Amino acid sequence: MNGHTVKQETTLRDEIPSNELTNHRRFLEEAVKRVATDECVSPEQVWQGIKDGTIVIPANPLHKGVIPVGIGKGLRTKVNANIGTSVTNVDINREIEKLHAALSAGADTVMDLSTGGTTNDIDQMRQRALEHCTAPLGTVPIYQAAVMAIEQRGSIVEMTSEDIFDTIEKHAADGVDFMTVHCGITRDSLTRLMREGRVTSIVSRGGAFIAAWMIHNDAENPLYSEYDRLLEIASRYGVTLSLGDALRPGSIADATDRAQVQETIVLGELIDRAREAEVQVMVEGPGHVPLNQIAANVILQKRLCHNAPFYVLGPLVTDVAAGYDHIAAAIGGAIAAASGADFLCYVTPTEHLGLPDLEAVREGVIAARIAGHAADVAKGISGAMEWDRRMSEARKSLDWSEQIRLSIDPERAKRLRSALTPAEVNECSMCGRYCAMKIVSEYLNVPVEKC
Amino acid sequence: MNGHTVKQETTLRDEIPSNELTNHRRFLEEAVKRVATDECVSPEQVWQGIKDGTIVIPANPLHKGVIPVGIGKGLRTKVNANIGTSVTNVDINREIEKLHAALSAGADTVMDLSTGGTTNDIDQMRQRALEHCTAPLGTVPIYQAAVMAIEQRGSIVEMTSEDIFDTIEKHAADGVDFMTVHCGITRDSLTRLMREGRVTSIVSRGGAFIAAWMIHNDAENPLYSEYDRLLEIASRYGVTLSLGDALRPGSIADATDRAQVQETIVLGELIDRAREAEVQVMVEGPGHVPLNQIAANVILQKRLCHNAPFYVLGPLVTDVAAGYDHIAAAIGGAIAAASGADFLCYVTPTEHLGLPDLEAVREGVIAARIAGHAADVAKGISGAMEWDRRMSEARKSLDWSEQIRLSIDPERAKRLRSALTPAEVNECSMCGRYCAMKIVSEYLNVPVEKC
Repeated sequence: MNGHTVKQETTLRDEIPSNELTNHRRFLEEAVKRVATDECVSPEQVWQGIKDGTIVIPANPLHKGVIPVGIGKGLRTKVNANIGTSVTNVDINREIEKLHAALSAGADTVMDLSTGGTTNDIDQMRQRALEHCTAPLGTVPIYQAAVMAIEQRGSIVEMTSEDIFDTIEKHAADGVDFMTVHCGITRDSLTRLMREGRVTSIVSRGGAFIAAWMIHNDAENPLYSEYDRLLEIASRYGVTLSLGDALRPGSIADATDRAQVQETIVLGELIDRAREAEVQVMVEGPGHVPLNQIAANVILQKRLCHNAPFYVLGPLVTDVAAGYDHIAAAIGGAIAAASGADFLCYVTPTEHLGLPDLEAVREGVIAARIAGHAADVAKGISGAMEWDRRMSEARKSLDWSEQIRLSIDPERAKRLRSALTPAEVNECSMCGRYCAMKIVSEYLNVPVEKC
Repeated sequence: MNGHTVKQETTLRDEIPSNELTNHRRFLEEAVKRVATDECVSPEQVWQGIKDGTIVIPANPLHKGVIPVGIGKGLRTKVNANIGTSVTNVDINREIEKLHAALSAGADTVMDLSTGGTTNDIDQMRQRALEHCTAPLGTVPIYQAAVMAIEQRGSIVEMTSEDIFDTIEKHAADGVDFMTVHCGITRDSLTRLMREGRVTSIVSRGGAFIAAWMIHNDAENPLYSEYDRLLEIASRYGVTLSLGDALRPGSIADATDRAQVQETIVLGELIDRAREAEVQVMVEGPGHVPLNQIAANVILQKRLCHNAPFYVLGPLVTDVAAGYDHIAAAIGGAIAAASGADFLCYVTPTEHLGLPDLEAVREGVIAARIAGHAADVAKGISGAMEWDRRMSEARKSLDWSEQIRLSIDPERAKRLRSALTPAEVNECSMCGRYCAMKIVSEYLNVPVEKC
């Protein structure tokens, strides 16, 4: 991606007469510096990653106040939280509350997946979210394009290319930092899916919209056939593309099947073209995957997509954990990230059952952060191991305020701790006067933690 | 372990004039049959595992009404829940409630770790637990021996061998099915620990008691030096030994260090001697272990301990997840079990902060069960994959009552689902009228799940 920023600067200057954009080159330079500082790595390393396409910094210069975040090789594993209105929940304020809950729980990015109300409502939701979100904000424009197609033409399958690309451009112009675009589902991969058969067919909503459109219209996926048009918009606005996995498995039984792998091959080719066009790009992945296939999935994606950053949804290691899918996803996410995945989309406890409330958003973010951090420790990411060591030293020295401060969710740690009686606090939480640690400390003459 | 049951039958007849015990041979035969049926494997396979020492069935003939459970090679990963009184919580009824909460959440075994009140209180707690617990019940007799030593001699380090072995025999005679015994901490391994140094020294309570005793008395660990005495009791009562890991790491930084590995070598030798004495035996393991060292830990244990069943506590993949340690443990447990660990000790959300309440017990059990099941899917354990497939088929056919029935915690799934408004239920939980699945179903002409 040599010359990436120079070209962007030029095109943006030419096309968008905005004061912010005249400083586009400086914007990206500043973003790289900020990311390097946050990650305790050199700016050169981050620049090299962007040039190689192994790192993306999804930050649209039109998103006022965005704090850039780096995603990819050598950087801390990042966590995304989804929010958004739906047909039965059109309350924008409630979704903005969720956005803040996600950020305060430590989400690195947020995606607005709204489909509730009219296209106007969806516009408002997105614009409010962009105002409130200091983190990079992503969207899935095909959702709004589908809502618009129903409004204007009565059916999703009557959607036109214009609907899709106009919506994409509208999101870019609003300042959306990254977008999921389901470019890899093609007539070829869809045919393979139908030929092999699946337990749960297509579970990606965007993927399903496009599959239905393709079959109804007997035509190729416009996001594939008109991919250059997409690249042109992304390049013009400095938007990062997230190539969606329309054919991701929705059950353990469907994982790593021919349709999924076929789509990944196509996504790999599209990665090359995005890099050629100097557009930042990452790839989305499964989904539901048995534990023993996760590393293989990451290796496959990294190889086929030439080490593009990998953004996984979970993966869930079992289909049966409804009510606890954040835990099934944390298991899969930790293994995926330790194997090389860079970006974890959270899964909440209410996945497969309903929409998350504020507490479920919080739990989803924390579970994904635990997974990402466990992977960062395993991968030797700068600073990861030190956090654990400081926590264990605080345990050893019985420094409770420091333990709470260093907890992944200090608020929750404090609440659980404050539920103890004074006697319990004095006696330590578990062993009381039989505190193993006091005994060991006395006899081994080395400082130890309470059990 | 050829002839295991014959010898047990004889000794038990000679030593314990109990009607139940005259049927000891039949008891174990019935246990094997029951385990084989529960696991959908042949009784021959289970017998062979017991003979080889790769499977244990912790079931004391004196534990009335116990439903035997098999732990080890080729069997479903099992989950243990800890309960028990402590210095600040001496309420036995409350702990019995936790026992029932653990069983109703699907725990396969329960351990009573009581240290609260007098030795009499601890006796009562254990006897009540045995009455209430249909699952195999385990204890850590050294805890009660320590309490007794303080009562009778003023200090844990004044504990005698008699205190320890009398307590062990008392637990066996009460019907305890398996016992943690910290036999592997020796002067040798303790010296190595002190020489290398650790962030968190010894975090096993039993291990700390013994370490302090050894140093104070300048003597070898009685559970090691008088191991034959332990084997004699275990053999006489048909109790399964669980060789405790006194030197397990209590922080990521201490994982897989010389002390831990030294102890595992010793435990391996003790495994051989237990098998020689025809005593069922398993090995306990860490603890806190970084994700990338877990598989190596399991391989090491399996090799050094000649494939004895491996019972792990977590392992926690990070030290910083206080408040969410059940998730850190689920990640580690899933990887451990997929690598060959057989038995997961639950960790609750309140670990490192306080004692669990009923809800925390429930969450701890379910998190460990998710981990175990994910591993069982990966290992191809009989029936594991089918559960997921049935769940996904229920999703595909929008059969909500079946989805709830097949959830790992139907009660919670039902509660979350019933929180939806009627509109939400009718519209499906996520996409409402934009339900991808309906569209796909229509156009692909294949049945699909709701998203």
